[in-house]
Amino acid sequence: MKSIVCSVRVEAAPPALHDNTADLDRLRQALLAALADDRFLTIPFERMVPVARVFRESGFAGYALLNDQEQGWVLADFLAEKPQVLAGMALDLGTTHLEATLLDLEGGNVLASGNLENSQISFGADILSRIHYATAKRRQQKQPAPDFLDPGLRELQETIIAAINELAGQLAAAAGLEAHAIRALSVSGNTTMAHLFLGIDPYHICREPYIPLFNCAPALEAGQLKLAIHRAAPVWIMPSVGSYFGGDLISGILASGMAQSNKTRMLIDVGTNAEVVIGNREWLIACAGAAGPALEGGVARMGMRAGPGAIEYVSIDLESYDLTCRTIANVPARGICGSGLIDLVAALYLSRVIDIRGKIRDPKKEQDQARAAFMKAHIRERDGMRSFLVVGEKESFEGRAVLLEQIDLDAMIRSKAAMYAVLKTLISQVGLDFSDLEEIVVAGAFGRHINPERAITLGMLPDLPLSVYRAIGNSSLRGAEEVLLDRASRLACEKIVSSITYLELNVNQEFMIRFSGARFIPHTDSSLFPSVPSFNGRE
Amino acid sequence: MKSIVCSVRVEAAPPALHDNTADLDRLRQALLAALADDRFLTIPFERMVPVARVFRESGFAGYALLNDQEQGWVLADFLAEKPQVLAGMALDLGTTHLEATLLDLEGGNVLASGNLENSQISFGADILSRIHYATAKRRQQKQPAPDFLDPGLRELQETIIAAINELAGQLAAAAGLEAHAIRALSVSGNTTMAHLFLGIDPYHICREPYIPLFNCAPALEAGQLKLAIHRAAPVWIMPSVGSYFGGDLISGILASGMAQSNKTRMLIDVGTNAEVVIGNREWLIACAGAAGPALEGGVARMGMRAGPGAIEYVSIDLESYDLTCRTIANVPARGICGSGLIDLVAALYLSRVIDIRGKIRDPKKEQDQARAAFMKAHIRERDGMRSFLVVGEKESFEGRAVLLEQIDLDAMIRSKAAMYAVLKTLISQVGLDFSDLEEIVVAGAFGRHINPERAITLGMLPDLPLSVYRAIGNSSLRGAEEVLLDRASRLACEKIVSSITYLELNVNQEFMIRFSGARFIPHTDSSLFPSVPSFNGRE
Repeated sequence: MKSIVCSVRVEAAPPALHDNTADLDRLRQALLAALADDRFLTIPFERMVPVARVFRESGFAGYALLNDQEQGWVLADFLAEKPQVLAGMALDLGTTHLEATLLDLEGGNVLASGNLENSQISFGADILSRIHYATAKRRQQKQPAPDFLDPGLRELQETIIAAINELAGQLAAAAGLEAHAIRALSVSGNTTMAHLFLGIDPYHICREPYIPLFNCAPALEAGQLKLAIHRAAPVWIMPSVGSYFGGDLISGILASGMAQSNKTRMLIDVGTNAEVVIGNREWLIACAGAAGPALEGGVARMGMRAGPGAIEYVSIDLESYDLTCRTIANVPARGICGSGLIDLVAALYLSRVIDIRGKIRDPKKEQDQARAAFMKAHIRERDGMRSFLVVGEKESFEGRAVLLEQIDLDAMIRSKAAMYAVLKTLISQVGLDFSDLEEIVVAGAFGRHINPERAITLGMLPDLPLSVYRAIGNSSLRGAEEVLLDRASRLACEKIVSSITYLELNVNQEFMIRFSGARFIPHTDSSLFPSVPSFNGRE
Repeated sequence: MKSIVCSVRVEAAPPALHDNTADLDRLRQALLAALADDRFLTIPFERMVPVARVFRESGFAGYALLNDQEQGWVLADFLAEKPQVLAGMALDLGTTHLEATLLDLEGGNVLASGNLENSQISFGADILSRIHYATAKRRQQKQPAPDFLDPGLRELQETIIAAINELAGQLAAAAGLEAHAIRALSVSGNTTMAHLFLGIDPYHICREPYIPLFNCAPALEAGQLKLAIHRAAPVWIMPSVGSYFGGDLISGILASGMAQSNKTRMLIDVGTNAEVVIGNREWLIACAGAAGPALEGGVARMGMRAGPGAIEYVSIDLESYDLTCRTIANVPARGICGSGLIDLVAALYLSRVIDIRGKIRDPKKEQDQARAAFMKAHIRERDGMRSFLVVGEKESFEGRAVLLEQIDLDAMIRSKAAMYAVLKTLISQVGLDFSDLEEIVVAGAFGRHINPERAITLGMLPDLPLSVYRAIGNSSLRGAEEVLLDRASRLACEKIVSSITYLELNVNQEFMIRFSGARFIPHTDSSLFPSVPSFNGRE
């Protein structure tokens, strides 16, 4: 009984003249005896009559469904028969995408999974524009009614609730269930998304000193949010630490296991922002938002999220200069996702198509014949700007060539430099070396298929044995799954929030120096990357 | 901070770049520090935004209003200024009447008091007819919607809520407050009234084996019941023990202080039913509903509730045969209330107008001249039935004489016999004598002005020194007041409910024998009443 909802068999003696305990008091006594703990049990007012009715009609026996809330047990339902499956939905509430898993809360197995675009995008692509939208229509009321909601905020909330309901319906259908059979929901998202989800004013999040209205949400039930799942389903919202340090990252820390480990681990989570945490069960130190442009769709002009048609793997044979691409779902290429981009840039560096600054070299000046031929075939130039042709018009989706432009490369170099500078600054801050790390957990859409070897080649990740790296995919979703299944994980979130130290890198001088040094491949100081061939000074 | 709502001064440092705790988390931390206990603090979802707004606008300082619930603290409101008064309403939710007090929760003083007829009377004068009304229109739905309410039940609930709102408005106005300034409500009523108040099916209460749906109500707030007081006001409902042993009696036990005393006390509460409890801090034994017709309005044809025009005091001078009456408010007599009836019947017995069986004697057979003249003036006879004229047409209200008929006298004798039999059976049951009692607490409308000496004359109450008797008036209301002011009293209710033993007298052979013996004035065994003149065998 560690999941957030559990079913408990209850049997009571039927009432008699000599045993005239009231129906609900009888249920309460039998339930407390079955639970055998000393936690408080709440039977909510609105559930008294339906619960008592089933209890009586089933001969004073059946199955109580209990929500495990921080303050104790809450009776969610009473059923005559044991439910076939107790389904819970874990949701990564991303700024651009929603990704969810439907779990069997008793067995822990996945019943269905799916994703959906965050339809709030129509009100603003990023967090800042949504905060603006939420509060721009604010009426200048001195004393708003207690249930007053800014019209923009209401729109944003209704939109995201509708999207979650759609996704819940899809998952339930895929598992052969009705949406209201979903008995729990965990939500992991950044601080602004959590505010918008609850319809709570995010105004101060983006204004100095950047204070959210809440970090820890109260115990909620789905009915309070008009969610179309079971109205008594507990809604667990991952706590956040601050405006720019959201529940999604707490979720990632949880999923990385670092807060439960005696040895020190590092978590690198690249989503819309890149976030890095180092720590163990004793301490946690984190920084976020400083890694520059993200590696997922949006960096390169041809960049895209990992999905059908995204190039996720690239290699260039250093002898034959054969270029090999693989797209997700093996369909014609539409663009390139994070892992493909890293592969590509690493390959371009190793094959010396680009120099240590990430600049596409001039094919005309190339001495090596094979390389010159390859470069000639792949490098295009327009208005003095070079670009690299990854997939030509004939093989690509709808005849749109996949091109990596110099401007994209420059952004990529800045990103990787920022990433390494963050990692190095953070590890120095705690007086450790990278070699002290038990594990580096790589998460995010970026992390799903990443080849750490290639990232090391770029000087993006430290030059450590590959066995140190572990990819966990969408860590925000993984953490959301864990809290559905395990009370210890729910309690761990609280501990993570209270033990985390946040390092502000935007104003960190050391970070800026390290960032400059990292703007070469693999690094100005090539001794930091002994496994990577260095072409410095061999131009 | 023992009252059910308390205000707590909160001061927090304003947020800064280096201190970016979220507004509500900041409030929570400051509040927990001010409370300095380890109880759980709930900030309900719907209160997050308004509370955070005032906290911020008041410079991160102000006054938190907290509801003290069993599971911990619940934040009810946040105010910039300390509230002038924290008002709470204690309500005796009687079947026929509502009686209420408005208290200052911090000082404990009475701000206002008042009463109102229970407007549910239009749906049925007694509990049984209201239970019938509540469920007669029941639709035969296999699976009623979760929010389904029987139409009759809904009507009854809406009626009582409207009446409470009316009374709350009156009390608030009398205290110079708005109704929504009432921050707490305690309700003491019988089990059926508690069900009707919450709109909960009372169907099984009056059907063997007489099982209520609930005895202990959950934590509630006024907004959930559409009460017109502050929506976050906690609504405390006195727990009951069974269908015929309601929260009003638990309230009386609490108010009597017996459950907190080392010495044994007895509580006699006469309302619509007569209920008797004996006990101390170790044990409590009770019986209810067996005392026969009540002594308040309804027994005698001229019987009425204590109110203007009710005869509340009667005496007959045993020398001059002068009859003296006093009415409440000194207005012409409209009827006779419980205390007046006891005075009257005792006086009729002592003046030998009635015999030891309570029968009006034949004036023609009277030997004593003065008494014969008195009887001739006061005894009327019609169809062979005698009646006693208390107040003649000329002095009474609207010229309707106040008459005590033989049939009323017979009912009165049965009532007093039942009362004494109950007391005697109960005291024997626990192996004690009346003389072992530290105190006899007399409560109910009946108890407000009762002269125990006259009740002893009738053989209704045991023949003990008058100092043993203490009248506390409406004990149901007294208990409701106590729980508003004192957490220890709220906790005591739980203890009372769990330690009480209920004695069923309707099927008790000993009770029936004692009842027969008590149908004489003062008793068949006159040695039980040494202070009362015995006319047995002196007819």
